[in-house]
Amino acid sequence: MNNIYKSIVASIALTAMTGAAFAQVIGKMEDQIRWRQSAYHTMAWSMGRIKANVEGQYNKDQVVEAANVIQAIANSKMGALYQPGSDKGKGWKETRLKPAFFTDKENLPKIAQGFGAAANEMAKVAAGGDAAAVKAQFGKLGEACKACHEKFREED
Amino acid sequence: MNNIYKSIVASIALTAMTGAAFAQVIGKMEDQIRWRQSAYHTMAWSMGRIKANVEGQYNKDQVVEAANVIQAIANSKMGALYQPGSDKGKGWKETRLKPAFFTDKENLPKIAQGFGAAANEMAKVAAGGDAAAVKAQFGKLGEACKACHEKFREED
Repeated sequence: MNNIYKSIVASIALTAMTGAAFAQVIGKMEDQIRWRQSAYHTMAWSMGRIKANVEGQYNKDQVVEAANVIQAIANSKMGALYQPGSDKGKGWKETRLKPAFFTDKENLPKIAQGFGAAANEMAKVAAGGDAAAVKAQFGKLGEACKACHEKFREED
Repeated sequence: MNNIYKSIVASIALTAMTGAAFAQVIGKMEDQIRWRQSAYHTMAWSMGRIKANVEGQYNKDQVVEAANVIQAIANSKMGALYQPGSDKGKGWKETRLKPAFFTDKENLPKIAQGFGAAANEMAKVAAGGDAAAVKAQFGKLGEACKACHEKFREED
């Protein structure tokens, strides 16, 4: 089962927690959206670091650090931060989440699974230290990001 | 050598990269500050998840996921995002970085090293799955966060 789908299931399971504990995990709507935006920007910074390395002088440590950040976030079940109605609202800025996120039961699991797998593979390839393999996997990971943006994120 | 100190050294070493590649890694001042704020908020979300688990019903997977996010970010040499002058400026919001960050050569390495060590230990203890040990290490990690906030972050 993919990460986001698992998260959605997990977030439903979370309702067994006390109200207070549940609120801490998913926060208010504003917190949820801000945490999502923060996590994606942290991944964007990390993608930029890998890009700089595959296009310029290659530093294995830097690529490993960045890939590990992406992998950890990709596996953190961020789906809990997508509560119903969170396609409207402001975190750091207005969310760009499309309502389709809550209705497209066919594409969401596939896209989420693809992203999780690409992130795990990125971390594995980064640890191997082969710059050409990293470049190839970086391209695949970028495609996985883009697949989600195209379906579920509004253009600016 | 601790993470932030290593990052500072690494960020100096980065000047050997081409201007374009370097700019990609550290971004414009606004990017740097936004990336820092994003990374800290991603860690704050993760701390909230661990807190909910140690105070409520314990879910090992959730704690491991959150601890791994904190560990990966703590080891990502964020020091590169603290270029001179970045105690002024706006990312998502005005930075709260104190100028002391750039002058306190005695406390910064100690505090950064303490945080890195606490984050690595948190991930290790989380993987062990002992809720009491996780609670104790969560307290220590919180102290490590606070040590830095007290010295280097302005109050709201």
